[in-house]
Amino acid sequence: MDEMPGKVYLVGAGPGAPDLLTLRAAEILKRADVVFHDALVHPQTLELAARAKKIAVGKRSGRHSTAQKFINKRLVDAARGHKIVVRLKGGDPLLFGRAQEEIDALRKAGVDFEIVPGVTAATAAAAELGLSLTRRGLARHVAFVTPRAAEGERENDWAASVLSADTAVIYMGAGLAEAISAELIKRGKPKDTPLVLVESATLPERRVLHGTLADLPELARRTGEGPAVVLLGEVLKAALAEPAAAAKEIEALFKRA
Amino acid sequence: MDEMPGKVYLVGAGPGAPDLLTLRAAEILKRADVVFHDALVHPQTLELAARAKKIAVGKRSGRHSTAQKFINKRLVDAARGHKIVVRLKGGDPLLFGRAQEEIDALRKAGVDFEIVPGVTAATAAAAELGLSLTRRGLARHVAFVTPRAAEGERENDWAASVLSADTAVIYMGAGLAEAISAELIKRGKPKDTPLVLVESATLPERRVLHGTLADLPELARRTGEGPAVVLLGEVLKAALAEPAAAAKEIEALFKRA
Repeated sequence: MDEMPGKVYLVGAGPGAPDLLTLRAAEILKRADVVFHDALVHPQTLELAARAKKIAVGKRSGRHSTAQKFINKRLVDAARGHKIVVRLKGGDPLLFGRAQEEIDALRKAGVDFEIVPGVTAATAAAAELGLSLTRRGLARHVAFVTPRAAEGERENDWAASVLSADTAVIYMGAGLAEAISAELIKRGKPKDTPLVLVESATLPERRVLHGTLADLPELARRTGEGPAVVLLGEVLKAALAEPAAAAKEIEALFKRA
Repeated sequence: MDEMPGKVYLVGAGPGAPDLLTLRAAEILKRADVVFHDALVHPQTLELAARAKKIAVGKRSGRHSTAQKFINKRLVDAARGHKIVVRLKGGDPLLFGRAQEEIDALRKAGVDFEIVPGVTAATAAAAELGLSLTRRGLARHVAFVTPRAAEGERENDWAASVLSADTAVIYMGAGLAEAISAELIKRGKPKDTPLVLVESATLPERRVLHGTLADLPELARRTGEGPAVVLLGEVLKAALAEPAAAAKEIEALFKRA
């Protein structure tokens, strides 16, 4: 028998807390030979891959994007020398995870692969707020967008999606807060649209900042280096109405941890 | 010490396969005293709740919606007699799970609660297709919508969100396939927009039907009674281009199970 070709698993690590990983992802990590992981994957999640060589590939929020081709190549190479190769990404790999570039590279190289979906930051952030993103009679469409355009990308009219959605979740937007707020207000989104910025959702260091669309630049200035999602729409009004209560609930939640 | 008030956990069971549950959800189920579950939750997931009384509350795709108030009341009552009460919902509770009505009822009754997010059907279906919902340079906004309006609901312009999104995922839409296809085409969405209907995603009985927006009514007629999501947009073109390859991959995936 010749060289056994390996398989690459593109795995969602979930929004942050290590116990928001799926059972399937945990099983695959236990069997993994090599794990290529994002910088923000939790150390406890990596510990599950006890047998594996762990390689940080260091992408954060679209930075270091020139490294993508290099990551693609490393995945293909690893599958030639190992049976179980894991590419572990924060959140869900199929929502703003740039998985498609890796999928295309694996397909092109004839490498077998499988995708394991994960919990995405949007619903994890909403869970911490105690709020549904959809609400009967009030919110039946949710838009997940990112205003972050990549080099050479065609025009990205993220704002149109936000304007037509009842609830919108903006990924990787904290660094573009001024532009996001200005663009949406210019195009008719009310300044007082309820908005919540959640940084490091589901982690002990998470921050929840309440305000309105007009406040977004100020809220973003108060955040740190953690990954952040911005939620806006009428369903967030409940979070604004009782930020103190929401904060208390979140605190209680973390006493467990 | 008087009666200890219980806590209600609103838990996402994930898209179908029992190993797409989160570690946190599995732990809570093990400790549960009572579990109120949707009809479609996998039997193996329910088995995790070894100590618990299990009560099917039988909602499927918006049917039996008159029972919602009754479910709310049962959750509140259960928390008065038990320490750990779980409300287990298919997918993620905060995306089309009608969790808000239960949250409001629990808040009003002063019952402590916590939400555990889950993997939603959209990314699970995309994982089976081997396709990212977002794609650098092609798809930067994803809309999650349902065209299913509830009684007394205000006008639900789900179509506007689909029209402005690069990729759209329609939940609970298979029963309204004619109307969805007609409305979107009337409003300018090209008839040949690539579309995939995934029924019972992540389960052995899943079906993946490939076509275009114009084909949706025909595809929907070929589905059964399982929960279905419709994915449409240019990113699905890859699935159309190689349906045979995609089907083969999916088959391989299920050989494991």
